[in-house]
Amino acid sequence: MRLATLRDGTADGRLVILSADGKSCRPGTAGTLQRALDTGDFSASGAEMPFDETACLSPLPRAYQFLDGSAYVNHVELVRKARGAVLPDSFWTDPLMYQGSSDSFLAPRDPIPGDPAWGIDMEAEVAVITGAVPQGASPARAAAAIRLVLLLNDISLRNLIPAELAKGFGFVHGKPPSALSPIAVTPDELPGWRDGKLHGALKVDLNGRPFGRADAGVDMTFDFPTLIAHAARTRPLAAGTIIGSGTVSNKEADGPGRPISDGGLGYSCIAELRMVETIQKGRPETPFMAPGDRVTIWMEDAGGRAIFGTIDQTVG
Amino acid sequence: MRLATLRDGTADGRLVILSADGKSCRPGTAGTLQRALDTGDFSASGAEMPFDETACLSPLPRAYQFLDGSAYVNHVELVRKARGAVLPDSFWTDPLMYQGSSDSFLAPRDPIPGDPAWGIDMEAEVAVITGAVPQGASPARAAAAIRLVLLLNDISLRNLIPAELAKGFGFVHGKPPSALSPIAVTPDELPGWRDGKLHGALKVDLNGRPFGRADAGVDMTFDFPTLIAHAARTRPLAAGTIIGSGTVSNKEADGPGRPISDGGLGYSCIAELRMVETIQKGRPETPFMAPGDRVTIWMEDAGGRAIFGTIDQTVG
Repeated sequence: MRLATLRDGTADGRLVILSADGKSCRPGTAGTLQRALDTGDFSASGAEMPFDETACLSPLPRAYQFLDGSAYVNHVELVRKARGAVLPDSFWTDPLMYQGSSDSFLAPRDPIPGDPAWGIDMEAEVAVITGAVPQGASPARAAAAIRLVLLLNDISLRNLIPAELAKGFGFVHGKPPSALSPIAVTPDELPGWRDGKLHGALKVDLNGRPFGRADAGVDMTFDFPTLIAHAARTRPLAAGTIIGSGTVSNKEADGPGRPISDGGLGYSCIAELRMVETIQKGRPETPFMAPGDRVTIWMEDAGGRAIFGTIDQTVG
Repeated sequence: MRLATLRDGTADGRLVILSADGKSCRPGTAGTLQRALDTGDFSASGAEMPFDETACLSPLPRAYQFLDGSAYVNHVELVRKARGAVLPDSFWTDPLMYQGSSDSFLAPRDPIPGDPAWGIDMEAEVAVITGAVPQGASPARAAAAIRLVLLLNDISLRNLIPAELAKGFGFVHGKPPSALSPIAVTPDELPGWRDGKLHGALKVDLNGRPFGRADAGVDMTFDFPTLIAHAARTRPLAAGTIIGSGTVSNKEADGPGRPISDGGLGYSCIAELRMVETIQKGRPETPFMAPGDRVTIWMEDAGGRAIFGTIDQTVG
């Protein structure tokens, strides 16, 4: 099943269930995705209408919880290496995770707000939306609670993050509202969903040029059931909790990946390219995003269709 | 106006508006507090009924955002001193704040779950619930968005916190769901509400004995408008955002406060007493909470009535 939420002037929007070909949709009986998750009623009722992904809000325009992991430890290792720090061994067994803004997700085509001096960057990620998860759930129990899979642009303000990291209390300023992909998909409808991961190339273009093609199923040290169980160790998770994978990142041999223009798989955020530049050339060369810069994020099925629709945002 | 949310089997409960004497209530027309905050409709309609605070959920049983400050820098300085660390000067001008679990607040009389080996502690705090706050709002604009004031028991798992602080990503394990006071009150009905702070003794009893009597209006370095503006620097805040003050803490002369049994104002969490013990005696003596330990948190008006009702929790 593929779902979306149409803009209707309310904070929660209007749930629709897509047809098999994705060209039309019908209203979800529950009214909103949160209510469908609360009640388990994902049925459709009412008249069929054309589906237009540009009319979509994020599937959950406001959610009660967003916990973002850093499952691609390769990415974290590069960050550390670029600033001359060693990655603690525990990072390979104990996931990094922060609680992010979830009360006002940007729509998939909303402009990215913010002061360019803050160092605006995208982070292309995979995310899941869960049903209720009891506190202390095992990874197997967590796996059974995964209701929907989607993509996420975890917008990051790079120049504000170091000071917040030093305080130890997580991100309030460095992680403003993110955007979700227009379409959320049940795992059973995703051929690339296996082993608790979404396999396939996560496509990221920056200003119309290929920037990232990393495979989301590769180099993911912690699968989603492990991330969810980590999140639920001391708290239950309410239905509608969003768990992010962290920036998708593939390494090459034992080194960092190359840009697409050099035959590599590229990157899912600008910071990673800047880290590679720092390691190789002594300093970063690629700037963060400036007004007018545009990022698109999507993933294709075997027929070339954007499974989750496209996140398409321009810095405002 | 004084509001509460009655348990009715749903995740959001049923909003009620209290009578002037607090002995009865009428249903809120909006149905839930979130909807009242979304629409601005705080009217009552329907039959009057007796009000029983033991039938209450937290006023917002699930909220889209909870950001907890550390406004009583005295408390933070003591934490640092107990572990031999110096407080950075910036802590007096730049608030510490983390995003906490908001999807499943405990009811005011729910047992406190958790493994005693995690080091279970209470933190008695003041909190406000906001209307919508635009990104970049000034403290004056933030002040105008404060809709309700209430109390909060920010349950903390002390033995899990040091490892999370070291990771820098904030608290996922160390801060499980908190409990809110049964009653939320509009600022205009609080004689102690001035200068963006709630003045008055925040009463904390542990196992029926006075443990804390600190004045919430004293030694609060950052007032609520400042905390809200800090939270909104790079993100808008949706209606229903909860902003916490951090553990209320008063200092005495230039040193830490004394226990109530020694003529002091006591503490709002066990950790602070343990820090004072560590500074004075070389090691902490008071244990964290064990099964059966009970904490009550309330604040009285001039007539001795519990303004916000009472948080009354026992470790389960």
